[in-house]
Amino acid sequence: MRRLKSVAVVGVGLIGGSFALALRKAGAVSRIVGVDRDRQALERAAALGVIDTAADSASEAASRADLVLVAVPVRAIGPVLHDVALGLGPDAVVTDAGSTKADIVATAAQELRAGFARFVPGHPIAGREASGVDAAVPDLFRGARVVLTPEAATAPEATALVRACWEACGARVTEMPAAAHDRIFASVSHLPHLLAFALVSEIVSRPDAAELLGFAAGGFRDFTRIAASSPEMWRDIALANREALLEEIDRYGARVAVFRELVARGDGPGLQRLMTEARNARRAWPGGRRSQADE
Amino acid sequence: MRRLKSVAVVGVGLIGGSFALALRKAGAVSRIVGVDRDRQALERAAALGVIDTAADSASEAASRADLVLVAVPVRAIGPVLHDVALGLGPDAVVTDAGSTKADIVATAAQELRAGFARFVPGHPIAGREASGVDAAVPDLFRGARVVLTPEAATAPEATALVRACWEACGARVTEMPAAAHDRIFASVSHLPHLLAFALVSEIVSRPDAAELLGFAAGGFRDFTRIAASSPEMWRDIALANREALLEEIDRYGARVAVFRELVARGDGPGLQRLMTEARNARRAWPGGRRSQADE
Repeated sequence: MRRLKSVAVVGVGLIGGSFALALRKAGAVSRIVGVDRDRQALERAAALGVIDTAADSASEAASRADLVLVAVPVRAIGPVLHDVALGLGPDAVVTDAGSTKADIVATAAQELRAGFARFVPGHPIAGREASGVDAAVPDLFRGARVVLTPEAATAPEATALVRACWEACGARVTEMPAAAHDRIFASVSHLPHLLAFALVSEIVSRPDAAELLGFAAGGFRDFTRIAASSPEMWRDIALANREALLEEIDRYGARVAVFRELVARGDGPGLQRLMTEARNARRAWPGGRRSQADE
Repeated sequence: MRRLKSVAVVGVGLIGGSFALALRKAGAVSRIVGVDRDRQALERAAALGVIDTAADSASEAASRADLVLVAVPVRAIGPVLHDVALGLGPDAVVTDAGSTKADIVATAAQELRAGFARFVPGHPIAGREASGVDAAVPDLFRGARVVLTPEAATAPEATALVRACWEACGARVTEMPAAAHDRIFASVSHLPHLLAFALVSEIVSRPDAAELLGFAAGGFRDFTRIAASSPEMWRDIALANREALLEEIDRYGARVAVFRELVARGDGPGLQRLMTEARNARRAWPGGRRSQADE
């Protein structure tokens, strides 16, 4: 890829910070401008060498950038894109790192207007237990998957630039429609999060919650680990991807009803058949053995 | 506790083997007799020094034992107790390590008859990823919880002996009624297992399962880890604890319906309230930080 003169990173947390570090390590960029409404995070990013300069606003950062990465919580992407649009140069490309895509595409169309053709919706599938710029590392995206969901209106060269940047970070890039992305992640990410929150929620609603938790062991621990995630983030994802998530909740409910019926009927062979299929699939899944806590 | 002359362990796997090693390490027993329908496992147990002698049958082992631990899969406990009863001396105490209790109490009453007063139903809450006697370690139960569910008919001195043995293994022993045990474990163990199996089962039933799993990440991995467990074991537990499990499935379904309704209505504050309660409870739970994979 051509070396970029300037990349703006709006939101210098784990994702934005790691993107900056990875691009710099790959020699893909000369100058990184950071923006964050959290002034301390921004100063920390500069002190750590994650960014070269701090800008006061997304529009200011965008005005000097070849590429703008918006790596803020889903709910903040709209206002940020609004601000980015105010400063965006005619050739600059914009991308994001949000966990949902169709809603962000709609927001981007509204906020970026003419600039929408140079907006490439993106979702890096990576994370760590820790968050914030102090947790940022240049290798966060090495081997990780990144989904891009360009629209018909998206300029191919914009998509190519964003793809090249993520590949420079070591990521494997896949393109698909926003709706397909949202269905996939409703299934393998948003639904499990909601289910884990619901299980802990059900237990803490009981008078004997402390006793129940006192006997909970390793299976419960792993099943509910994601219920320790940010309520704000998952609230926003659930609402942003509402239609796909509702469909997944209903599909899942139907499958649980099948299991319930097998238990109620005492159908051992039927239970064993479904459990064995699931066990085999889970054991064959290569992701089952990774030790990294990525989301 | 008084030093026991002879302990019989029926089922020399992870649990039975670790119990034997722990009792021996504590100096609590002179001689350990092992029984296993898997001849290789039995020879391995002898070779590893986990047991002193191998017996050909549970009745033979029981005939010379002060204490018999039945550590076999739930479905095999009935036949084993039947066999134990044939050889059991008048003062010998019997206990088990099954994950469900009310059904085992009913089976034990039927199989042990007069010996039922010396049967102490038990459930050690411990495990490792690995299974079998090669995975047995003397410290498996150190700090682990063990639930005993003596009946009104259970001789107090029998319960005291089994408690003393588990305490000698380093475990924390709690007594409660079998029905209370089964409700608790339906909630924090049996339900999560069924839910994890159901999620993977739902995904593998789809034509695009491979694509979905290709994008699944760390949250999915932990949520579904227990779906890699033994289908036979969890089929048996689900059926053995059917009533309590059905009740838990329904309670959980009702809570998921609440979350579903909040998502459908776009009720952000409502979602955030429930997710925050769950997040706080999950973060405050001391078991959340243990690294041992115990079930």
